[in-house]
Amino acid sequence: MRPIVFLAIATSTLLSADDKSVLQHTMDTRAAHYGEISRKIWEFAELGYKEKRSAELLSSELRAAGFAVVENVGGMPTAFTATWGQGRPVIGIMGEYDALPGLSQDDTPLRKPLVEGGPGHGCGHNLLGAASLFAAVTIKEWLAANRIAGTIRFYGTPAEEGGDGKLYMIRAGVFKDVDTVLSWHPSDQNGASLKSSLAMISAKFRFYGKPAHAAAAPDAGRSALDGLMIMANSLEFLREHVPVSTRIHYVITNGGSAPNIVPDYSEMFLYARHPGMPVLDGIWERVVKCAQAGALASETRMEMELINSSYNTLPNDALAALVDKNMRLVGGITYTREEREFAETIRKSLADRGRPIGSQEGIEPPQEGQGSASTDAGDVSWTVPMAEISAATFVPGVPAHSWQSAACAGMSIGRKGMLVAAKSLVLTAVDLFADPKQVEAAKASFEKRRAAFEYRSRIPAAQKPPLTYRDNK
Amino acid sequence: MRPIVFLAIATSTLLSADDKSVLQHTMDTRAAHYGEISRKIWEFAELGYKEKRSAELLSSELRAAGFAVVENVGGMPTAFTATWGQGRPVIGIMGEYDALPGLSQDDTPLRKPLVEGGPGHGCGHNLLGAASLFAAVTIKEWLAANRIAGTIRFYGTPAEEGGDGKLYMIRAGVFKDVDTVLSWHPSDQNGASLKSSLAMISAKFRFYGKPAHAAAAPDAGRSALDGLMIMANSLEFLREHVPVSTRIHYVITNGGSAPNIVPDYSEMFLYARHPGMPVLDGIWERVVKCAQAGALASETRMEMELINSSYNTLPNDALAALVDKNMRLVGGITYTREEREFAETIRKSLADRGRPIGSQEGIEPPQEGQGSASTDAGDVSWTVPMAEISAATFVPGVPAHSWQSAACAGMSIGRKGMLVAAKSLVLTAVDLFADPKQVEAAKASFEKRRAAFEYRSRIPAAQKPPLTYRDNK
Amino acid sequence: MRPIVFLAIATSTLLSADDKSVLQHTMDTRAAHYGEISRKIWEFAELGYKEKRSAELLSSELRAAGFAVVENVGGMPTAFTATWGQGRPVIGIMGEYDALPGLSQDDTPLRKPLVEGGPGHGCGHNLLGAASLFAAVTIKEWLAANRIAGTIRFYGTPAEEGGDGKLYMIRAGVFKDVDTVLSWHPSDQNGASLKSSLAMISAKFRFYGKPAHAAAAPDAGRSALDGLMIMANSLEFLREHVPVSTRIHYVITNGGSAPNIVPDYSEMFLYARHPGMPVLDGIWERVVKCAQAGALASETRMEMELINSSYNTLPNDALAALVDKNMRLVGGITYTREEREFAETIRKSLADRGRPIGSQEGIEPPQEGQGSASTDAGDVSWTVPMAEISAATFVPGVPAHSWQSAACAGMSIGRKGMLVAAKSLVLTAVDLFADPKQVEAAKASFEKRRAAFEYRSRIPAAQKPPLTYRDNK
Amino acid sequence: MRPIVFLAIATSTLLSADDKSVLQHTMDTRAAHYGEISRKIWEFAELGYKEKRSAELLSSELRAAGFAVVENVGGMPTAFTATWGQGRPVIGIMGEYDALPGLSQDDTPLRKPLVEGGPGHGCGHNLLGAASLFAAVTIKEWLAANRIAGTIRFYGTPAEEGGDGKLYMIRAGVFKDVDTVLSWHPSDQNGASLKSSLAMISAKFRFYGKPAHAAAAPDAGRSALDGLMIMANSLEFLREHVPVSTRIHYVITNGGSAPNIVPDYSEMFLYARHPGMPVLDGIWERVVKCAQAGALASETRMEMELINSSYNTLPNDALAALVDKNMRLVGGITYTREEREFAETIRKSLADRGRPIGSQEGIEPPQEGQGSASTDAGDVSWTVPMAEISAATFVPGVPAHSWQSAACAGMSIGRKGMLVAAKSLVLTAVDLFADPKQVEAAKASFEKRRAAFEYRSRIPAAQKPPLTYRDNK
Repeated sequence: MRPIVFLAIATSTLLSADDKSVLQHTMDTRAAHYGEISRKIWEFAELGYKEKRSAELLSSELRAAGFAVVENVGGMPTAFTATWGQGRPVIGIMGEYDALPGLSQDDTPLRKPLVEGGPGHGCGHNLLGAASLFAAVTIKEWLAANRIAGTIRFYGTPAEEGGDGKLYMIRAGVFKDVDTVLSWHPSDQNGASLKSSLAMISAKFRFYGKPAHAAAAPDAGRSALDGLMIMANSLEFLREHVPVSTRIHYVITNGGSAPNIVPDYSEMFLYARHPGMPVLDGIWERVVKCAQAGALASETRMEMELINSSYNTLPNDALAALVDKNMRLVGGITYTREEREFAETIRKSLADRGRPIGSQEGIEPPQEGQGSASTDAGDVSWTVPMAEISAATFVPGVPAHSWQSAACAGMSIGRKGMLVAAKSLVLTAVDLFADPKQVEAAKASFEKRRAAFEYRSRIPAAQKPPLTYRDNK
Repeated sequence: MRPIVFLAIATSTLLSADDKSVLQHTMDTRAAHYGEISRKIWEFAELGYKEKRSAELLSSELRAAGFAVVENVGGMPTAFTATWGQGRPVIGIMGEYDALPGLSQDDTPLRKPLVEGGPGHGCGHNLLGAASLFAAVTIKEWLAANRIAGTIRFYGTPAEEGGDGKLYMIRAGVFKDVDTVLSWHPSDQNGASLKSSLAMISAKFRFYGKPAHAAAAPDAGRSALDGLMIMANSLEFLREHVPVSTRIHYVITNGGSAPNIVPDYSEMFLYARHPGMPVLDGIWERVVKCAQAGALASETRMEMELINSSYNTLPNDALAALVDKNMRLVGGITYTREEREFAETIRKSLADRGRPIGSQEGIEPPQEGQGSASTDAGDVSWTVPMAEISAATFVPGVPAHSWQSAACAGMSIGRKGMLVAAKSLVLTAVDLFADPKQVEAAKASFEKRRAAFEYRSRIPAAQKPPLTYRDNK
Repeated sequence: MRPIVFLAIATSTLLSADDKSVLQHTMDTRAAHYGEISRKIWEFAELGYKEKRSAELLSSELRAAGFAVVENVGGMPTAFTATWGQGRPVIGIMGEYDALPGLSQDDTPLRKPLVEGGPGHGCGHNLLGAASLFAAVTIKEWLAANRIAGTIRFYGTPAEEGGDGKLYMIRAGVFKDVDTVLSWHPSDQNGASLKSSLAMISAKFRFYGKPAHAAAAPDAGRSALDGLMIMANSLEFLREHVPVSTRIHYVITNGGSAPNIVPDYSEMFLYARHPGMPVLDGIWERVVKCAQAGALASETRMEMELINSSYNTLPNDALAALVDKNMRLVGGITYTREEREFAETIRKSLADRGRPIGSQEGIEPPQEGQGSASTDAGDVSWTVPMAEISAATFVPGVPAHSWQSAACAGMSIGRKGMLVAAKSLVLTAVDLFADPKQVEAAKASFEKRRAAFEYRSRIPAAQKPPLTYRDNK
Repeated sequence: MRPIVFLAIATSTLLSADDKSVLQHTMDTRAAHYGEISRKIWEFAELGYKEKRSAELLSSELRAAGFAVVENVGGMPTAFTATWGQGRPVIGIMGEYDALPGLSQDDTPLRKPLVEGGPGHGCGHNLLGAASLFAAVTIKEWLAANRIAGTIRFYGTPAEEGGDGKLYMIRAGVFKDVDTVLSWHPSDQNGASLKSSLAMISAKFRFYGKPAHAAAAPDAGRSALDGLMIMANSLEFLREHVPVSTRIHYVITNGGSAPNIVPDYSEMFLYARHPGMPVLDGIWERVVKCAQAGALASETRMEMELINSSYNTLPNDALAALVDKNMRLVGGITYTREEREFAETIRKSLADRGRPIGSQEGIEPPQEGQGSASTDAGDVSWTVPMAEISAATFVPGVPAHSWQSAACAGMSIGRKGMLVAAKSLVLTAVDLFADPKQVEAAKASFEKRRAAFEYRSRIPAAQKPPLTYRDNK
């Protein structure tokens, strides 16, 4: 392994492009190792809070690199932090590594599950964790080689897909001393993001009634399904009277056991989303009233279990500008002939192809916007200044949470995107370490955007991490 | 006017058939007068609580006959009592005289409104009041002529059709000292009734929301119509889980004013019915919960105004047997050739002709059964022993509340039925006066059927008679 | 094994009570053998269309007794017939042997599953099959011993619990040549039945939509859940406008897979019932319209799979009278002290204890009535004259489809009831063989009740037996 | 009356500001006359298609000024055109004059209806018609005085508020030969508009069922209200799956007549809107499917009567620029002390005051945007190039369709706004007459925006103008 560059710099300015070029070059020589790690995690394909082998692989690499690892953060067996260095600033890099149910897929451009119905890395979190690891280790070496003060920390954040590991890590206090967090996510394009995600609250609404023989004594029963149906109908009437950017969607996870018995149990799983949490709070209150109305009208009992609560992402203008500058140094991705063929084949399976092949070669400028996804990184972004980076790990047009993205995440295209991400993280981090004004600017942007709003998770303080939330899937 | 028969009887046995025959004969000679009174009320066609001229006509006849008239009973301008005699027993006869909206009809067998859209006597209450008057006056003369102790009282009961005058008369205490009440109703057959009616509660449910421009700011509005719709949907889910003999039916009397405004007001008019009031109480509680759920889920305010509450009729076995015996003396109705032609013509307009022409000549035996109508006489029947008599004022097959019944009520067929009713009332009353054991038997039957159940009206004590309930029709 | 009695009778009168007493006595000596068979099937506890070992045990016994066995009737591996004799009359006896899911229970008066969540004989079909076997073999021996003409046939009918094996056996023609069928069922009382069951149709309604990201592009999706919900709402509105004795009940067996995806699939499982099939046909048409409306309004596709269709049972007056007479010879059941203790313990676990201990000692007279269950024996009863017998295999008050009934079916109380059933079947069958007038009377009763109505199964002709219907439970 | 200015101009350039200043000055001297006309129409306060006196007043003024009047256009008694001049270009000016129900209001800043519940000019159409008249006459005189070729035409367009008079005028062909149409509307601000309105379709959905006594035979009825309710529920489920800018809102205009009768008639009045007509077409199709589903599921019959169909307004960039330039010459409105007090008082009655007092003194620059209202002028804008002008006839913050706007429309503030409008129309028209390139530019802008889309009204060709649409209000 080639040693990290020694930089005779005064740590109060940005690194020169030349220095950064040397750093990138060094990383190219190490990319294969981290690519293999991403492949292993892709093969593990472990679901949220079950990512034992993935977390272990990442933390053992970090430990080997000299990081101090703290495990079982916030009571979550697959959450950990790995810290190296001392003094300020403290720069964090987040890594995720959980897979998605039902998306098992080989690294082929045609649908081919590895395990029928099994989980797969349809959101590319295998790359996410591995690139962040790659960046953290590189930064550590750079700090050490240049004897620069400061602390680099890797956050091993489990169960991003619906388990909200980051919320419980925030609650555990591990983000308290960090100055800036760098975050990236697999995508079909490259660029620093100024887009926001949707704030989201989700819950399971459970109704408890009184069973009775549905033919012999329907009047003796109190139908838990009726309670749920009245709630659902009420929600539909609600839609007209919430702000247009609201989203409310639900499925019925238990709609009664047998037709000849008045159901004494039913369950709805519901998400509500809005671009801003305070507005969402008001909407959520009304959702709960609909549930209470269902119970009231049907003489059943309703219990709500809050499952998720994610803030919308708070963009950071200073960090976006800094990332953008660095990504333009890193550059985009050029496909080999084989990769291009893979890309063309996989795009044939898409209904809507969006951006064209070739677009992955460029870097998109940061742009305000409203995404439609939700993520627990949103909560981090309201806690500390956070950068958000996209890298084109997926063929242009391939959406996340698809078998196509799972395929890309297992082959060279995914690994090329991962390298773009790792380099962008490293170059941005070294700027932050080298120039305190950058950290100040990030903080100023943070304060301006949040406008004195105090973050408070909507998850009740007593609620434990939903470690088994994937069991009933 | 021919004088009433003098009877040298010991007042401890039933009258002989011969004596009754003389009484009937006397009544035949006076029938034309009371027939004219029925025709006048038919022409007045006054709606509930508006029956000024009808009530005045009846009370002036009673006053002329020597009865002591008390007007404005229970705060109702068209409710009155007329009493004659002294001592026990006190026998009551009830008379109704309100018309129905929209049933204006000439005395012809083809549809021909007298006033387009105007009210008409589709329930034959013009005959009801006149026959009861006829009976009361006849009984008074018979009591006087024979110097028999006892009191005869006519109850002028307004607004039977949805205004529930009798409930407020009961509340006013005018039924407290009565021993037995005789009641009759126009029908398409003759007979003493053992059938029950349905207990009923009705109310208007009003929702109050917050208006907003439906295109510009639907989220600023809280839809009163949504509240009502959620209530309605909840009620539909309720249907499966109430006893099968329950009836719940409603209309939407206000569903918003203009499509481009989020409705801030809506109204539902709902009836619930069941054969027994205690069960209905439980059902009603659940109906109200559905309304509350509508308000809760839509963030609107709900107000309920109770409109009606009628008990199911409590049949009286002893009185039914006594009436049956007397009706067999009175006999049924034979049509003239013109009446038969009228009957045949009118029956052509019926979808379902039910019993045949000729059936009005007989007397049906008393039979248990469950009717589907509701009446405020039900409340009287839980207060004192009450007889219920049917007389064939309508052509066989003609249902109540139809233009066909309004036509019959205005011509000779109606008047023939009215005479059967008046005679049956008289013969039964004289038996009750003549034989104290009959009154005892009626009371025993009453106690047996009600089984210690204490009558209590579901109308709140503070609620006043709905004197204007016909205004918004 | 004690030989069957030889009867020097003229086959044109009923057997004498004495002869029957001898027959019963013989059966007592063989009861243990058949009790063991019932226990084995109880232990097999095989679900509908999976009753391989149960069917094999029964058919091997019949084959050993000289019956000609036909297997795989109507394409159902566990349906068979076993026939002995020749000429008329042909008398059939039906045997069922399928268990119920989730009712695994030891032969103890306290809840104790043998296999947690496993199947159990909560409807006592282990006794049903074994008693019918016992009867068939006894009758065969009696026919042989007395050289009486006629044919006895055992119908091995699988999957009564929702699989409707008998419908496919009727379709296969195996009931065409039979004169009378004798049927019995475990119960908590003894007696010939004149009660009817409810005609029933059940189906799975499946909606197919178009998936979309529920937050990003809800307008691109067509929700299969919406289709189902609109259907469900429509059904609730339907309730007011079907005859009061109708039953419609449903559960939602698939209500979408994940909240963040517009569901492209949903499923409702629905039963509709009514005392008569022609009326039910009309109701069913309207149920289907509700489903079509759901698809129409939501722009989804709806597919209906008919699962069950059972006729109401057509009682047979002549057979009920004959059975009643014979059951009075057989008599009821007396408990030992241990059995009484078992009964008292098990009754403590019942919310509603119904008839008292001791009632199982008597024979209930046949009585018209309307049950609330449904059975595929109903279809047989519209095809040929059918007797229906109840025997007190369950402790009084114990309902079918409970762990309590599963417990009884595995111990001596169940076996005592089974003996009552077997004897009643035998005595009735010998009367039918001995006296042709009895068969004529049964046929006359059948023709009178069905009143020219022609049986036709509501299952489409092309639909195969749902051999895997228990797989997705 | 002061004569119009004579202009020695070459008709191929815009008029100079000086010449325009002279024109404005002339108009100031005539403003009182047209102010009085606006006041008369304000007092007439005639509803859509009932505007006889208003239309007569306007057309008689035009006739007097030498215009050729064509009445009863498109079969509408209150629709007319008035034309003067010859040759091209043909410039149209539209005038509306219908009032709104329920908005009767005196010219006071406190709520004070002139006629309780009566109609009033809450949309300021009294000003609209009068200012357009003022402009048309002025232009005619200017054309005549300067002997300029070209034709000026006034379009008397009735029933803008829901009656869509313009659609039937387009259909009658009176817009075929026009080159450019100038349109203005009362507002609380001044400016040329580039905003669009919403395309809208509205209809009455009527359900026809089968009546039955709701207690005696609910199963014999087919509820028209059920049909409507199922439609309504289906619409609520639809909301999630239409584009977010869609609006669907409805009221129930008939929800059954009496609770004790299964409703055989019901009616819903529904609006659907979207920024673009082709998308709205697709949404409308789905609305109709919901209605059909309601009928299907309830076994009722559904009839739809299309009431309105308005296109979104197609802005015209060239005309907006031209209007903007002229309005800056005209300038805004300065209040007297009394007017300011009036404005301050009236603003106290507003929940949301929007723009401040003083803002009416300026001219807003043209800006793209999406309004939430709909208008039949939208259809004109897809037929010919159309300018849209706003003038501050209402106190800043006062919304249209309010008693506050009706008050303003009757007093000096309204008349000042009307003068701004009239001048802006005149100055723009003379530019169009003077400079053919302006008309060409307007046409080019029109072609560019409509992008080959061919206008076609959604009103069926056979449908007549809804001349009585205000009768059932």
